[in-house]
This record gives sequence, C-alpha cells and structure tokens, in this order.
Amino acid sequence: MAKRLIPLLNRVLVEKIVPPSKTHAGILLPEKATKLNSGKVVAVGAGIRGKEGNLIPVSVNEGDTVLLPDYGGTQVKLGDKEYLLYRDEDILGTLHE
Amino acid sequence: MAKRLIPLLNRVLVEKIVPPSKTHAGILLPEKATKLNSGKVVAVGAGIRGKEGNLIPVSVNEGDTVLLPDYGGTQVKLGDKEYLLYRDEDILGTLHE
Amino acid sequence: MAKRLIPLLNRVLVEKIVPPSKTHAGILLPEKATKLNSGKVVAVGAGIRGKEGNLIPVSVNEGDTVLLPDYGGTQVKLGDKEYLLYRDEDILGTLHE
Amino acid sequence: MAKRLIPLLNRVLVEKIVPPSKTHAGILLPEKATKLNSGKVVAVGAGIRGKEGNLIPVSVNEGDTVLLPDYGGTQVKLGDKEYLLYRDEDILGTLHE
Amino acid sequence: MAKRLIPLLNRVLVEKIVPPSKTHAGILLPEKATKLNSGKVVAVGAGIRGKEGNLIPVSVNEGDTVLLPDYGGTQVKLGDKEYLLYRDEDILGTLHE
Amino acid sequence: MAKRLIPLLNRVLVEKIVPPSKTHAGILLPEKATKLNSGKVVAVGAGIRGKEGNLIPVSVNEGDTVLLPDYGGTQVKLGDKEYLLYRDEDILGTLHE
Amino acid sequence: MAKRLIPLLNRVLVEKIVPPSKTHAGILLPEKATKLNSGKVVAVGAGIRGKEGNLIPVSVNEGDTVLLPDYGGTQVKLGDKEYLLYRDEDILGTLHE
Repeated sequence: MAKRLIPLLNRVLVEKIVPPSKTHAGILLPEKATKLNSGKVVAVGAGIRGKEGNLIPVSVNEGDTVLLPDYGGTQVKLGDKEYLLYRDEDILGTLHE
Repeated sequence: MAKRLIPLLNRVLVEKIVPPSKTHAGILLPEKATKLNSGKVVAVGAGIRGKEGNLIPVSVNEGDTVLLPDYGGTQVKLGDKEYLLYRDEDILGTLHE
Repeated sequence: MAKRLIPLLNRVLVEKIVPPSKTHAGILLPEKATKLNSGKVVAVGAGIRGKEGNLIPVSVNEGDTVLLPDYGGTQVKLGDKEYLLYRDEDILGTLHE
Repeated sequence: MAKRLIPLLNRVLVEKIVPPSKTHAGILLPEKATKLNSGKVVAVGAGIRGKEGNLIPVSVNEGDTVLLPDYGGTQVKLGDKEYLLYRDEDILGTLHE
Repeated sequence: MAKRLIPLLNRVLVEKIVPPSKTHAGILLPEKATKLNSGKVVAVGAGIRGKEGNLIPVSVNEGDTVLLPDYGGTQVKLGDKEYLLYRDEDILGTLHE
Repeated sequence: MAKRLIPLLNRVLVEKIVPPSKTHAGILLPEKATKLNSGKVVAVGAGIRGKEGNLIPVSVNEGDTVLLPDYGGTQVKLGDKEYLLYRDEDILGTLHE
Repeated sequence: MAKRLIPLLNRVLVEKIVPPSKTHAGILLPEKATKLNSGKVVAVGAGIRGKEGNLIPVSVNEGDTVLLPDYGGTQVKLGDKEYLLYRDEDILGTLHE
C-alpha cells in the first residue's frame, strides 16, 4: 500500500544506489572503491516557471542514474523504501556506463 | 461558527494528516511506520504576480494530499481545528495511492 | 482631530481585532479560544511598481478581515487609536464567516 | 546663506515635525499624545531608473506630510536647520487631516 | 606629474570640501557650523549597463557640489591631492546656493 | 568499468594537472615553481537557462586547459580517477602555451 | 615557457605596477609618495552574458593602466611573473598622464 509521490516544481525524487560492500564471491571491498554517491531518478516535477510564466523543465529524466551532492536532500519514506528529494539544480550530473 | 480562510498570494492552507498510532485492532504501530509528514490541501491562494503582472497560479489544488517539509509552516486555528499555512514552493510534492 | 493615513506603496493599515476575553454573560474564555490574530483593513497603498513601471495592486481591500502574522508590523497611533502597518505580502489571508 | 539640497535618485528630504510638548496655555502634554513620528517633505529626487532605463518617480511630493519610520534616515544640516534624508520606500505613508 | 583618473562604471571621483575652521579674521568656528559633508565632483564614469546592454548614465555631473554619506568612499591619491571615489547611488544629493 | 559523467547545467568536470615535483633527471623542483593550479576539461554541461528559457552555453570546451580557483570544486571519483566538478563561473581562465 | 592566460567572463588579468622606492639617483622616496595602487591590463575576458544571452563587454582594454582596489584580486603566477585577476566591476578606474 505504498504511496506514490509526484514532486512539485523542480524537485527530483531519487532512490539512492547503495554500492555493494562485498564482491559476489564475498570479498570485502575497500571503502575507497565504493565512494561514488549516486542514485536512480524515480520521479521528477513539472519544472519551475520563468518570469513570464513559461515552464522550465527539469534537467533529468525518470530512470536516469545521477551523481548526488554529499550533503542536502530531504529524506522521504514511502511504504518501506527510503528516498531522497533534491532540487534539480543540486544534482551534479548524469552517470553513464 | 468557524471562520473560513482564503490564503493570500501563493500560500496554501493544509490540514495535517495525523497517522494512526494503533491499528484498528489496537496493535501499537512502531514509530518508523508513521513517519510520512503529509496533509490535505484545504484552500489555496490566487498565486503571485510575475514581473509583468501576470498571475502565476499555485501548483497544488484544493483536496490534494501533499508531502510537507519537516520544518516551517505557520499554525492557524480556525474554530476548533489547527491548520498549517505554507508557501506554495515549500510543499514537497503530491501523494497518490 | 485624528489624522488619516494613506499608506505608501504596498503597505496596508490594519486595526487589530481584540477578541473578547469574556462572553457577554461575563464567563471568562480560555486563552486557547482567543488565539486567532486578525484585523480589519482600514486603508491600502496604491501598490508597488513592476520592472516596467506597471502598478501591481495590493491583494487586500479596505474593509477586509485579515489573518495577521504573529510577528512584524509597525505600530502607528492616529488620534486615540493604535493601528498596525504591514507590507501586503506579510498578510496571511482573508477571513470570511 | 543656507544651501539648498536636491536629493538624488529616490531620496526624499524631510523636515521633522516636532510635536509641542505643552499646550498653548502651558500645560505639559503626556508623552503618549506626542508619539506620531511625522515630517514635511521639503524636496524629492527624480526617482530611480528601471531595468530598461525608464524613470520610476518618487511616491511622495514636496509639501506632503509623511509618516516616518522609527529608525533610519540620514541627518543633514543645511544652514541652521536639521533635516532627514530617506529612501522613498522607507516612508510609511502620507498624513491628511 | 599628477595622473588623471577616469572612474569606471557608475563611480564618481570627488574632491572633499574642507570647511574652514576659522573665519578670515582668525576667529575659531564652532564644530557645529562646519558639519556638512560635501565635495566637488571631479570626474564621473560612463555608467553601468542595464540588463539589455543599455547604458544608465551617472546621476551627477562634473563640477556638481554633492552631499556625501558619512561613511564609505575609497580614498585615492593622485599627485599631491586626496580624492574619494563613490558609487553613484551612494551620493546623497546635489547642493545649490 | 569506469562510469562516464555528463555534468548538469553549467557544471564542468575537470581532471587536475599535477605538476611534476622533480625534473626528468630527478632534480627536486622548488615548491614555488609548481604553484599554478590548473586542470584539463573532461566534460561540460549543456548550460543554464536564461529567464526566457534560452540556453546560455558554458564558456569552456572539452579539452581546454583551465586555471582553477584555490578553493571550491566538488571531488568526484569515477573508476580509479579523481576529478573535480566546478560551476562554469568559478573557472578563472583558459591556459595556452 | 610561460603560459598565456585568457580570463573567462568579465575577469581582467593585471600586472601590478610596483612604484620605485628610490629615485634613479638612489634617494629613498617617502612611503606616502608611492601610495597609488595601480596596474597594467594584460588580458581581458569576453564579458558576461545578459539575461537575453547578449554579451556585455568588459569596460577596460588590454594595455590600460588601471586603479586597483586595496583588497581582493586572485594571485596567479605565469612563468616567473605574478599577476592579479579581478572582476571587471572591481577595477576602480583607468589612469591617464
């Protein structure tokens, strides 16, 4: 019975990617290798309005893998899952393989 | 004899949703399960005016269930009920089943 | 010989509504029941000018009953009466029966 | 040999009205009765320029009686007289009999 | 071999007027009589550019006698003389006999 | 399996140039000679949007050698390499032989 | 093998003029005579962009002798020489014989 959140304005809902601390074979990974602070975009707002009422869309899309800042973001719990809500301009970039 | 409040500018009047702390059967719910800070939109302002006098409407509607920030909001008592007044841009998102 | 004040720009002159602390029958009312911070709009300014010189009118009218913020406002004494002067954007909403 | 000051931009030169502390008959007035902080506009600037170079005129005129804020204003002595210089937006309103 | 300074943007170069502390006959003047903080405009900048690149000229002219604020201004020594450099908006007004 | 980062808005991804602390012949260089804080631009964002929705491109290009400010920048680790993420306006200049 | 720096946006690269502390004949000059904080413009940025994307050029040119503020500026070492990097709006004026 988890609720669905549609962010307002230029907010972006992100599910944090928790890097594995062990390999599949069970070898512990050093902390340094797991340092990238990234997440998956779950939902985006419609954007903010410019001075003339024009809508400026958010610069990431649902499904994007994004690089997150080390600080900031608002914790939101929907059902069992923890998410983070960011302002569009606080997300650092998109990550690609 | 409760008064009705029409918020000014981009303010939004919200009635907080107090999550049940017990199930219907009387089982106490752990605090974690009741963490979502949400409310029901009771009334919205007409919006603020842009630089050219154009009206920028509020981004939520009466009846919406909204996710509220942990801090902020102005307490307003109308008749017997407590409400909270937020600026449009401080409301985090809308919640849907 | 009371003077009349015409507020400048987007200022609003308000006469505070002091809620009765007793009923007509003389019963003392509990403090909680008298909590609403409201006033009557006595005079409004012409509004501020936008970037292009266009006048943006004040969002309340003379005679409106308004909800006031808990802090702020400038005390003004005209004749025997005490008034409060607010910026338009600081008034929270209008109250209706 | 008093100099004349023409204020720049949206500044307003005001001569403070010192309320009588006694009546004509010599009766001392209580402090409360003399509380209104008012002045007479002596000179006004040409106004500030908007983003497009258009001149936004000052909202008071020479000769207006104005309500002054309790703090602020720059003291200026011209000849024997003390004046106060305010920014247009700091003057609270105009006073009328 | 004094250098000449052309101020940039909306800066104004002012030579302070030091009021005489004695009369011609050698009588010491009381401090009160010498209080006006004024100067002579020696050079003005071309003005700052508005949002659309239009030049907004400075509101004083070379040769104007101006009223200066009590604080602020950058001291500049050119040859033997001390000058003060102000932003256009910090000059309070022009003085006329 | 290093990830590729596409910066958002006007952010610029920079790989810092670590100046050699010895010459090829193994002579230690004094600290003063190695002082220039520079980097290579690895990726740039699409730019920020102006008030009317127009895109203002970033002022550096991929491959540029840039002069970096002494403070600021966000550390990002992609694969084995450390990068720095700057806002376009914080980069001081481009360096050329 | 000195590098050449092209400043970004409205930055200006300045080589400070160190006034001689002795005359040619070796006489020590008093500190007062050497007080002017000036420099030579070595390179200028292309300017910043206005709200509509139009380029607002820098108000000084390469080769100008400029008056510098007492504080601020970023030290940059290129080859053997020390330079200072200023924002266009921080330079006080141009100096002419």
